[in-house]
This record gives sequence, structure tokens and C-alpha cells, in this order.
Amino acid sequence: MSSKTTVVQKYGGSSVADAAGIKRVAQRIVATRKAGHDVVVVVSAMGDTTDELRDLAQQVTPLPPPRELDMLLTAGERISMALLAMAIAQLGHKARSFTGSQAGVITDSAHGKAKIIDITPGRIEQALADGSIAIVAGFQGVSQDTKDITTLGRGASDTTAVALAAALGAEVCEIYSDVDGVFTADPRIVPTARKLDRVSYEEMLEMAASGAKILHLRCVEYARRYQMPVHVRSSFSQKEGTWIVPDPAEDETMEQAIIAGVAHDRSEAKITVVGVPDKVGEAARIFEALASVEVNIDMVVQNVSAAATGLTDISFTLPRDDGQTAMGALARIRDEVGYEKLLYDDQVGKVSLIGAGMRSHPGITARFFAALASAGVNIEMISTSEIRISVIVDESLVDAAVQATHTAFDLDSTEVEAVVYGGTGR
Amino acid sequence: MSSKTTVVQKYGGSSVADAAGIKRVAQRIVATRKAGHDVVVVVSAMGDTTDELRDLAQQVTPLPPPRELDMLLTAGERISMALLAMAIAQLGHKARSFTGSQAGVITDSAHGKAKIIDITPGRIEQALADGSIAIVAGFQGVSQDTKDITTLGRGASDTTAVALAAALGAEVCEIYSDVDGVFTADPRIVPTARKLDRVSYEEMLEMAASGAKILHLRCVEYARRYQMPVHVRSSFSQKEGTWIVPDPAEDETMEQAIIAGVAHDRSEAKITVVGVPDKVGEAARIFEALASVEVNIDMVVQNVSAAATGLTDISFTLPRDDGQTAMGALARIRDEVGYEKLLYDDQVGKVSLIGAGMRSHPGITARFFAALASAGVNIEMISTSEIRISVIVDESLVDAAVQATHTAFDLDSTEVEAVVYGGTGR
Repeated sequence: MSSKTTVVQKYGGSSVADAAGIKRVAQRIVATRKAGHDVVVVVSAMGDTTDELRDLAQQVTPLPPPRELDMLLTAGERISMALLAMAIAQLGHKARSFTGSQAGVITDSAHGKAKIIDITPGRIEQALADGSIAIVAGFQGVSQDTKDITTLGRGASDTTAVALAAALGAEVCEIYSDVDGVFTADPRIVPTARKLDRVSYEEMLEMAASGAKILHLRCVEYARRYQMPVHVRSSFSQKEGTWIVPDPAEDETMEQAIIAGVAHDRSEAKITVVGVPDKVGEAARIFEALASVEVNIDMVVQNVSAAATGLTDISFTLPRDDGQTAMGALARIRDEVGYEKLLYDDQVGKVSLIGAGMRSHPGITARFFAALASAGVNIEMISTSEIRISVIVDESLVDAAVQATHTAFDLDSTEVEAVVYGGTGR
Repeated sequence: MSSKTTVVQKYGGSSVADAAGIKRVAQRIVATRKAGHDVVVVVSAMGDTTDELRDLAQQVTPLPPPRELDMLLTAGERISMALLAMAIAQLGHKARSFTGSQAGVITDSAHGKAKIIDITPGRIEQALADGSIAIVAGFQGVSQDTKDITTLGRGASDTTAVALAAALGAEVCEIYSDVDGVFTADPRIVPTARKLDRVSYEEMLEMAASGAKILHLRCVEYARRYQMPVHVRSSFSQKEGTWIVPDPAEDETMEQAIIAGVAHDRSEAKITVVGVPDKVGEAARIFEALASVEVNIDMVVQNVSAAATGLTDISFTLPRDDGQTAMGALARIRDEVGYEKLLYDDQVGKVSLIGAGMRSHPGITARFFAALASAGVNIEMISTSEIRISVIVDESLVDAAVQATHTAFDLDSTEVEAVVYGGTGR
């Protein structure tokens, strides 16, 4: 067994978009190896390969069988990982590429959104012991039951990396993309947004769930469960990025900012079921109907019942992509539930304020709402957790709401940094 | 177990070059299924995908590690097979795609030119029993020793198909490309060339070894060993192609043409080692040196020793691609062997006359050489087998030699068929 520390690095599609990018990434990997670490690399498909393969599938059939779509899409990482191994070999270092299946990424059988059940990285450990750099295909695994190839869902290469890092007992999992780190807000909306040096797992979880696209939600859950330090940084610079680490101990919180950042999300829609009889079990029937068609609900608000009518309204948000499905499911139970009508609104946006410090600082909500009011933003729905406050607002007011909130909580940087921000690089 | 007969179909890259081609092929597959057969399909990568992946590798490194090159190239069939399974599903039939590894194509570890050691098609049989059409990636397998992904070498999807057909006890292995079948000569050179209805394994072997690109040599060897009937035909028409079958019994030969066809090959070069001391063991040393650098020799001619000098010349042909390697190996043993000089000529071509009937018909050689002489073609080297005569001629005279030979043996068709001939479609 090697006494070296193991570093897992994950490179997104924008970092390996072409041969030049692959060579650049190979140099960074070799530098890490030369620094004395065992290196395991998780890589996404090159640039837009995954989307191109999806397009190809659409040309053949509007409804590709999920098993075959997974087989198709996994060709993308196969290409990038083999090329990356070649580029490392060209620099004089041993490298071996492994598919998700070969790397021991065992999943359930839910094609297109499989969950990792176990990691059995025997071949990876063998490669490391052999002095090789191991390159692993992100985003993919093999079903425990059917032995079929699965994919973990969009952007899940991050999850592969953290899960592998945990299984290998790595010192750190570095997530490389074309972004310098995690910012206090999207720099495209707030040019004075600051890069965070550290953010806790809990804060990052809330940010990911609130629309920050920098890291996949499941990846952060994995990191928290295994207490794996994650370093989010850019593959285009040598700058330190953002460290995602355990919540600091109580005595350290003095130094921590109250608010970590402001996140926003334009991917949701709002459905209102108007005139629901205010009886026990009616709301349950509505959400059972939605669950039966696998629609995930985010925020829910039920109005106080108007005593005169005995009717209430139920509003909830959901991914826009599921809008049609949800409306169909609700229409089918109309007679059963006896509601009046359905309202569908996809011109909404969610703005969230996130910070572990809000646990011990009262008045955050008031300051947040005051900032929104002064920016002329009307609040349509509210949802809170221990370290997050989210509001649904009109989509056209999202930018104004984010900017006003960012300023109200003193998050603006005094110096404007030139940031690269072009998506998540997955 | 199903009592249905199993048909294995192999489609080359030109047949699945785009989404339209994939849909067209899917219809043909479904038609075979509807006719009551269990269908197993072996598919190549789409169009020029394999060459494009090779180019990508070259952009990264001039010398890609063979293991990683195999990992890269196998992405090609992964894409085509998944798309083909989707297209079949779109037509309402069950289909499941399998990589070479999943299909049980077990090989040795010679990356880039692996040999099939065994076929363990358990998952294929299971898919057929389940009522599915099985789609298998051609050209690839998995190493028995290292469990690494291997490729069988260029054009080896044919071999995958025949080997699978044999392992599954299939009734027939159909090889589809953009060519109507096996012709008496390359129709681009001889417009009056006729499509052969039947050709024996032995004749097809000689044709493949003599430069006819319609089928891969190893594929024919496999077919002969397992006595698997192979039907070579076009995926662009419904016409019968050419059946490759056992040599007809003696009493049937009356009906068979003496000559099956004329093949040619422009991929060889000729090396002459001039002034080799005519002693025991000198020739062996030369060919040992070539074998040690894995150069395959085709034809060999040693001149009669000139008594006065005690020196002789040794000429041989080899693939042009190996020319540099061979010249280097020979240069290194110059002092040891003591030859005078090396001559290298890659402006040569090989023309071969093939026919099982020549066993029982004398005078074939004389007629062949007379045809060449009347066309003004000088013969540089001669090699024969029981059912083949090959000559090396100047490359610029290959067309004339093929045409004259084709006419001399009455192979010209009375009606000129409009043939599609654009390579082998692999």
C-alpha cells in the first residue's frame, strides 16, 4: 500500500472541450502527481458531446428507451477519458482510463437518474499501486441488478468524483470548471459578487437546492455525509477556489459572515389549485397524484380557508419541465377532488438568501423583505429552512431582487474582480 | 429455448452512416424478425466515426497507448448500436444493445489486433429468449487476462458477426454493406465484372488474402472452420448477394466455373536483398530479423545463385505500411549477413487469379501468363497455391492486367450491371 495521499480531481466538459484543453488538463494532473500525490481523475464528456448525442437520439426517435439512451450517452466520457489518458502518457506518465463500470461505480437500475449504491474501486487502487494515474468516466455506473450501463443524471460527474474520493479515502476532491469558485451571487447579475473562500456543506446544500449551478446537489450531500473536503476551482487559472468544508465550531462562528450568498433559480413554475374543498385529505390527494407521475414539488403554500365558502387555494412550485405532466395529473383528479380550476404560471423566479449565521442572528427575514420592498419586488410565496429564506417573485424582477439583497447584506466586494462565469462546465 | 432459427446480420458503417440509414436498417431487421427469426445484429461505427476518433487521438499524441486507443475507438460502435436499438424500439419491437464485453466476446490482450479466444453469449441468448432483438458492437471484445477493452482490428466487425453466428448456432450470417456481393473483379476496373452467386470458403479465403476487400480474411477463416454459411449483400437493395459456402462435392463441380475471379492488391511493396552469400542459414537470418519486428511477409523469391560469385538475391513482398520497419531491421543485420544492398519498390501491384476449378484443369497458368503478355504486362514475381496464381507487376499496369485476365477467362458479363461499388462499407 502506498503511504501517499490521494487527490481526486474532476474536470468538466468545458475544461476538456478540445485536444488543446485535454493537453492543458493533462499538465495540471501531472503537476499534482509530481507534487507527490496519487491522482484519480474523473472526467466529463468533451464540450457539448452529451447534448450532441442526445440530438442524435432525437433524430432517431422522440422517445428513446432509457437503457439505450444511457448506453449512447456514456460514449461521451469514454472518448474524453481515453484521450486524457493518452495526453498524460505523452507527458511521460502512466495513465489508465476506466469506465464507471470498471471503476466499480455500482448503481440502482433507474436509467438516466441512477443512484450510486456502492463503490468497489479495486481496479483503481490497483492502478494507483502500479504507479498509474487513474482516469474515471464521470456520470456513469453499472446496475447492480441488471448489469446494464446506467447514467447518474445531468451534471452528476461531480457526484462520481466525491463518491470515489470518499471510497478511496482521498485527502481532497477538487472540482474543476471554468468558474473561479462559489460566489456570493451570480456575477452575471451582480458584478460586485465576491468569491467565497470557504462555505459549509449545509450552506452549499441550500445554495445547490436554490438554483446555484456550481455543484450538483447530490454531490454536496455525498461530501457532507462522508465529510470529504471539496475544493471548487477553475482549470483555467492557478488561483485558489472555494473550499466546501464542515460547519465551523461554535467558537469560530464569530469570524464567519452571517450570509454566505444569494442564489436564484429561473427553472421553476407555479401551479395554483383554486377552490379546493377544505376537508381532511384533499391536499394529500393532490400531492399523491403528483407523486404518482414522479413530479417533485418544491415550495407549497395553502391559503387560509374562507369560512364563507369552505374553499381554499393550494399553490406549489415545481420544475418547469414537469409542468405539462403535473397539469395532466391534476386534470385527471378534478372530479374526485372537486376543485374549481388550475392556474399555471411559468413566469416566476426563486430568490434565496443562504447563511449558517442566520441561525443565531434574528432580524434577517425582516431585512431581506425590506430590501425586496425597496426594490419594488412583490413576494408571491415564502419558504424557509434553518439557514435559508426563499421567495417566489415575478421572473422579470429576479435580477433586481438579487442585486438589492446582495447590497442589503453587505456582500458587495469593494474591488470588482474580473470573473469568468459561463455556466458550470459540466 | 426457442425453436426459431437464428439469423445474424452485420451492418457496416456506410449502412448506418446517419439517422436515416439507421432507421432504414432497423426496418430491414424488423422485417427479418417478422419473418419468424431470432435476430442478432452486429453493427460497425457510423460512417467515418472510427477515422474521426483516430484523428482526435493524433491531435493529442502521435503515439497513443494501444489500451487507450482501443478504449477510444470502441465509443464508435457504442453510439451506433444504441441508436439502432432505439430505432427498432421506435418500430415497436424490443431491442437491447450489448458491448463486445457484454456479448461475451473474449479476446487475447493484443490491443488493436486482438484475436477472439472464446464467445460466451449468455446475455445474447437471454435477450433472444426474452423476445428481444440483440444488437452487438462489432470490432471489440474484452481481454481474458486484463479485463481491458480490446479491438479486433480494422474491418473485424465481420469476424465478430461470424464468430457470434457460430457460437449461437445461427442458420446464416448475413454481411450487409454498400456492395451487392462478391464480384469476379473490382467493377471499378472491370465494368463487365459479374456478381458471383456462390463462392467456396477456400476461394473467398484466397480472394481476401489477395486484396479483395469485400470480407476480412479472419472472418472467412472463422466461417470455414465452423462451416457457417455467409451471405454477402447490400443493405441498399433487396437483391440476393453472394453466398459463401462449402466447396461443392466432386460431382457438382461440372456446373462450376473454373475461375471464381480476379483480385488485385496495391497495398504491398517489394524489397530485394541483393548479393546475399549463398550459404545455409542466411535466408533464415533475414526472415528472423523481419519476424522479430512483426513484419508479415507475403511472396518470396530467391534467384538461382550465380556460381561465379556465390551470391544470390532474395526478393519478398510485404505491406507498404511495414516498409520502413522492415528496411530498418534489415539494415541492422547487414554486417552479420554481409549482403551488398537493399532495394525498396512500392510501385508494385499484385494480380491474382482464383478458382477451385483450377485444381482439375491444367493449362490455367499458361493462359493467365499469355493474357498478361498480350497486354504488355511484365511479371516480376510469381506465387501459387492449389487454387490461386498471383503475380507481382508494375503498379501502373495493374488495371490492364486485371482486365486482360478477366476477359481471357470468359468472366465478362454479357450485360453490364449497374453496380454500386464504393469500398467495403466497414
